[in-house]
Amino acid sequence: MTQLSELLKKAALGPAFNEGKFGIEKEGLRVTESGKLALTPHPTVFGNRSYNPYIQTDFSESQLELVTAPTESTQTMNRWLMAIHDVVERSLPLNEYIWPMSMPIGLPAESDIQVAQFDDPTAVAYREHLAEKYGKKKQMVCGIHYNYEINEKLLIALFKQQTAITSLIEFKSHVYMKLAKNFLRYRWLLTYLLGASPVATDDFYTDKEQPLNTYVRSIRSSHYGYVNSEDVKVSFESLETYISDIQQLVATGVLSEEKEFYSPVRIRGTKEVKELASKGIQYLEFRIFDLNPYAAFGMTEKDMEFIHLFLMTLIWLDETATVSDIEKGKKYNEATALAHPYEISAYQAEGLALVEKMQEMIATLSLSTEQAALVEEAKRQLLEPKETIAGRLVTDIEKQGSYQLVGLALAKQYKAEALEKSYNLRGFEGMELSTQLLMFDSIQKGIEVEILDESEQFLKLTHEDHVEYVKNANMTSKDQYIAPLIMENKVVTKKVLESAGFHVPAGAEYETPEEAKSDYWNHQDKGIVIKPKSTNYGLGISIFKDGASKEDYELAVDIAFKEDRAILVEEFIDGTEYRFFVLGNETRAIMLRMPANVVGDGERTIQELVAIKNQDPLRGTHHRSPLELIQLGEIEQLMLKEQGFTIDSIPAMGTIVYLRENSNISTGGDSFDLTDEMDESYKKAAVEMTKALGATISGVDLIIPDRSQPSTPGNPGYAVIEANFNPAMHMHTYPYQGKGRRLTRDVLDLLFPELEIRKKKDTEAYL
Amino acid sequence: MTQLSELLKKAALGPAFNEGKFGIEKEGLRVTESGKLALTPHPTVFGNRSYNPYIQTDFSESQLELVTAPTESTQTMNRWLMAIHDVVERSLPLNEYIWPMSMPIGLPAESDIQVAQFDDPTAVAYREHLAEKYGKKKQMVCGIHYNYEINEKLLIALFKQQTAITSLIEFKSHVYMKLAKNFLRYRWLLTYLLGASPVATDDFYTDKEQPLNTYVRSIRSSHYGYVNSEDVKVSFESLETYISDIQQLVATGVLSEEKEFYSPVRIRGTKEVKELASKGIQYLEFRIFDLNPYAAFGMTEKDMEFIHLFLMTLIWLDETATVSDIEKGKKYNEATALAHPYEISAYQAEGLALVEKMQEMIATLSLSTEQAALVEEAKRQLLEPKETIAGRLVTDIEKQGSYQLVGLALAKQYKAEALEKSYNLRGFEGMELSTQLLMFDSIQKGIEVEILDESEQFLKLTHEDHVEYVKNANMTSKDQYIAPLIMENKVVTKKVLESAGFHVPAGAEYETPEEAKSDYWNHQDKGIVIKPKSTNYGLGISIFKDGASKEDYELAVDIAFKEDRAILVEEFIDGTEYRFFVLGNETRAIMLRMPANVVGDGERTIQELVAIKNQDPLRGTHHRSPLELIQLGEIEQLMLKEQGFTIDSIPAMGTIVYLRENSNISTGGDSFDLTDEMDESYKKAAVEMTKALGATISGVDLIIPDRSQPSTPGNPGYAVIEANFNPAMHMHTYPYQGKGRRLTRDVLDLLFPELEIRKKKDTEAYL
Repeated sequence: MTQLSELLKKAALGPAFNEGKFGIEKEGLRVTESGKLALTPHPTVFGNRSYNPYIQTDFSESQLELVTAPTESTQTMNRWLMAIHDVVERSLPLNEYIWPMSMPIGLPAESDIQVAQFDDPTAVAYREHLAEKYGKKKQMVCGIHYNYEINEKLLIALFKQQTAITSLIEFKSHVYMKLAKNFLRYRWLLTYLLGASPVATDDFYTDKEQPLNTYVRSIRSSHYGYVNSEDVKVSFESLETYISDIQQLVATGVLSEEKEFYSPVRIRGTKEVKELASKGIQYLEFRIFDLNPYAAFGMTEKDMEFIHLFLMTLIWLDETATVSDIEKGKKYNEATALAHPYEISAYQAEGLALVEKMQEMIATLSLSTEQAALVEEAKRQLLEPKETIAGRLVTDIEKQGSYQLVGLALAKQYKAEALEKSYNLRGFEGMELSTQLLMFDSIQKGIEVEILDESEQFLKLTHEDHVEYVKNANMTSKDQYIAPLIMENKVVTKKVLESAGFHVPAGAEYETPEEAKSDYWNHQDKGIVIKPKSTNYGLGISIFKDGASKEDYELAVDIAFKEDRAILVEEFIDGTEYRFFVLGNETRAIMLRMPANVVGDGERTIQELVAIKNQDPLRGTHHRSPLELIQLGEIEQLMLKEQGFTIDSIPAMGTIVYLRENSNISTGGDSFDLTDEMDESYKKAAVEMTKALGATISGVDLIIPDRSQPSTPGNPGYAVIEANFNPAMHMHTYPYQGKGRRLTRDVLDLLFPELEIRKKKDTEAYL
Repeated sequence: MTQLSELLKKAALGPAFNEGKFGIEKEGLRVTESGKLALTPHPTVFGNRSYNPYIQTDFSESQLELVTAPTESTQTMNRWLMAIHDVVERSLPLNEYIWPMSMPIGLPAESDIQVAQFDDPTAVAYREHLAEKYGKKKQMVCGIHYNYEINEKLLIALFKQQTAITSLIEFKSHVYMKLAKNFLRYRWLLTYLLGASPVATDDFYTDKEQPLNTYVRSIRSSHYGYVNSEDVKVSFESLETYISDIQQLVATGVLSEEKEFYSPVRIRGTKEVKELASKGIQYLEFRIFDLNPYAAFGMTEKDMEFIHLFLMTLIWLDETATVSDIEKGKKYNEATALAHPYEISAYQAEGLALVEKMQEMIATLSLSTEQAALVEEAKRQLLEPKETIAGRLVTDIEKQGSYQLVGLALAKQYKAEALEKSYNLRGFEGMELSTQLLMFDSIQKGIEVEILDESEQFLKLTHEDHVEYVKNANMTSKDQYIAPLIMENKVVTKKVLESAGFHVPAGAEYETPEEAKSDYWNHQDKGIVIKPKSTNYGLGISIFKDGASKEDYELAVDIAFKEDRAILVEEFIDGTEYRFFVLGNETRAIMLRMPANVVGDGERTIQELVAIKNQDPLRGTHHRSPLELIQLGEIEQLMLKEQGFTIDSIPAMGTIVYLRENSNISTGGDSFDLTDEMDESYKKAAVEMTKALGATISGVDLIIPDRSQPSTPGNPGYAVIEANFNPAMHMHTYPYQGKGRRLTRDVLDLLFPELEIRKKKDTEAYL
């Protein structure tokens, strides 16, 4: 058969080869402040292990397993791993951490380690069996499984380029088996580069084992790791031998289940191995990776892509490892795993030759310079063993005294980083904050998230057979189409609300002074505001709280027309504007917004006070934070000037100095949650208004002069300004002051009532 | 008390006085081709008289009563009258007409006139009673009732300007009673100007009456009309006398019900007169108007506004008619009604004085020049009796031989005008065609229509307690909000349809030639189209029906990039594009669109053929017609040139000459209804696609190479191009060829299932 590399070159399939599908499963122990294994149950905030696709437990109740869905690139895989990690870090109690190393510390007595408490009793029983057979401590070693599916379209294209194999399924098996065999032959190089378990505590070793007395590259990847017994022999000679060997081992009871076969590479695609022959291999699972303690999420994006290039090279190679090559590979790996991290590899020459092959492939297929740089770095590390992860780790352990201290410091650093901007879901910071929050909650609750259009904030959410599409975090199937159309039309909104009996401020628009003046009769004896249609810094506005005389009215009309070609005369409503966020039958959050301001302390200048207020991590720019930085630009300085201040003035203690007229958050305003303070009657009114508009979700803006007076039918006590059909949610979740309201959870609860998210008394997620 | 005119002047309330509420009830007999009374039942297509607010019957089954809702101006009132009229004209059988005169012709024997068959037996019994008491023939005389409500805000403003009356309800009664009294005093002027029943057939008169032997202004407004007997005396001296007199008449059995009181003006606002005292008068009903045979809808907009000005003047006058004034008014009116239409009025001087008062009011209150012109015209007619409606009518009767001939010709003319552009709802031609059709169907079925925002096509539809809002005729409460959001996003639509198992053409977008070229592997061996992202008259497009070689592919990529900065490579799908209009569980209409074209006849030039095709009344401009006029501009001429034609070429018999590449209706394309021709399997597929998108209403565009081959799971036979969330409906209703599909009825059926619109076997509305 023609070499695959030849087929790839001939058909210019490099770009296709470079694509693929990638997924990661990353284990990690929950530990306490002092580095001891957390003995708390797997948090119920993560929904249920029976369905959460992202957050699982592996062997023990404290052993988290974070799982990404298959993704289109290693970069995307990394984004999801970051995101899932963020969810977990922030959902755990503040005094729990994720241990960043493969080797555990501070394990309690075996009897105190609880196996994972699945709902399914057979899943628990299986773990009890493993505990007995391998010892719980070996089971607690953590690592990363890396799943790789070769681009299906490429395989079809390659299949068509050759004639030697006539069945596509067989052809695919042929390619995947080559990859598996070559991996078993050359995996030592990954152990060299990525191994990161140089040391273990003495109690890690079994009675029969001699504890190591020197640093090594990877205890986990050596025979000291969690491996099958010697009598578990599975031949990778062909898919057939692989299948029959595993079946035999299970039949004879050497393995309790197929999944007890702990190979460095597992062939995947079907529930049981026997189906692989007919249905074909779908992907391979590579299981050899230690946690990289220097990667906040267990593995860096660069290493993910390097592994990808390494796997591509194994397919690209002309050779396919034989059974005896595989045996050699096993020995090389064991020797590499148990070598001192500062030592030059015994197989350096072979490693450099492999690197050269990688470079050849990258050049031939015109892959990217970024990819070439990764290989260059691997070459450097082959020449400089201390630069490998294990090498650096040993240096740090020596410096700090123990791997426990190194690990604990890193665990706390990663947790602090995760909590720093808890409104961001790392990996997806480019998306809208509300969508990031909704994704956070979905991952947390085990609802599958697919991003259909990232820039459009379009998500597909799936729980079992139930699919929901969501745009901008709260545009869903639960609203009628006509409701947002009503809300986006101010005229129609007013008519609908008015005819339903709600108090809407009266108002009229005029395009000539004559028209406005002749309508005086309609406004007389009422409090009114006369203003240019497009308001600009308050110019041209006249307010008559108790009504205007005809002369005053006409003068005000003329003043307003100096600023614009159309003016508005509106009913004057004295009071404070509140945003009511209504979802379903409930007002879920109420917010008061205040213009950008600082409060004097009698010592600092306005400029200094602004700088201090801007240190709040909630403040940022470009709507990527819940609050915006306060500016000191032209408008702010003009506003100060009107009040007799400059930026260098020192306001007296307690003096509130406003820097803006408008209360928009986008211009540095403050947000105050007043949900619990508002009288129920107004909350009910907002719900009724939302219903009148036919809406399920709405942001209703009410002006309320005195919220201590309840709203009654005779004296409504409010005027409704407008209703918004895609109301912001993040500002309620991260207010400047007051309690945050996790509205995205309410959205999920609306979409997936079967999960009863609101009914469950979860540990509240860290906000 | 200060004169109302003084208050109006003092408070500059002219504009407020000029506003008001207006409504019309217009009777009209259904007649046959030969002018005989139609003896068919009231058409069931009009829903049911128990709820239809627009289309009712009056006394007899053949006597239509068209009713407008209260409107804000006489202009709007006229629009609604036109619209309701259009609905009725087009819904009646083609050989039925609406008689345009007050005096009927060709009445059958009384025994053959059937009273209106209401569901309610008491309503029928009441009419049987009237028939016995007054004779059926008098009942068949038709007229117009004009309802006028004085601007409520004005009344409040006036009330506040004075102190003499301390209760608002009493103040309102005071003003309305003044209006009613002055109307009874001066109504003769309206009889003079608007009277239009100069002659009747001999059988119209009762045995006791001496038939008139000369033309008069208004038989209907004289004692020969349908009036109460002489013993029905109700004093308008005060509201109290009015109430007690009517109550007395009913108590003594002189009147069978309060509504048997046929006064020229009726005081309205409560169900029973006795409540008027406590609840106040809401409006007045003026009942004296003959049908104007020269107005297609019974009364011109100008006359509606003149009456309004006349009523305003009656309020404006310093005097209030006394009981003896009212008696005088009655005599004046009788004399005017029975005067010869060519004669100068005996009360010309009083008429001219009244006109002067009207002019004074108009000047004082700065009303419009259009309003002033109406009064000027009335003055002219006072001087020139022949110019009044009755005068003109007598002239025409003399010319044509009989009023029957005049009426029949006009009835047929009005019907022809109504049918000419049956896709338009007159009065609302400025709105979108689909919305006009939906309004037509709503009026026809008796669903109340309120226009919330005319330019936004926003309607409120009401049937009893059931309210639905509709935008653009098919954006409703029946679609989920997320469905149109999915449909408006092509990327998301494709993903959703693809994951639901539908065949979506593969495609990719590239922004550099390199990117496109390196992706060749993804397109090889497939039929593809390579094109600039923004297609412009077909430039830069390459089609490879059976796949492209690498060289051809790269060349085509370069060609496409010459035209645009981004290109698309799409799966080539050979076939015809059809629009499937899906609503609910059914594909309701299927349309094929063809580019603008003419078919040669071997004689005419292309220019001539286009001119002939453009005579189709379905063709117009600016999307205000179901089809657009074919243009012969630059693009069309270029297209002709490419085919070797000019606009002066004479194509051979049967040759189809295309004038456009695209098949859009908006560029003169033809539309063909193929609903009945399409295989059911495709209709089902379109329904399933709509469901997959979560939508209720969708316009699905499918390319089908061979519609004679059914779609099967293995061989779908289509590719879905896109789905539209506000699909055009009018083009299906008025296709160039094929059966029209009344989709707006399906929308109503969806919104108001309780009316079972689709289930009823109605006489199909004329389209």
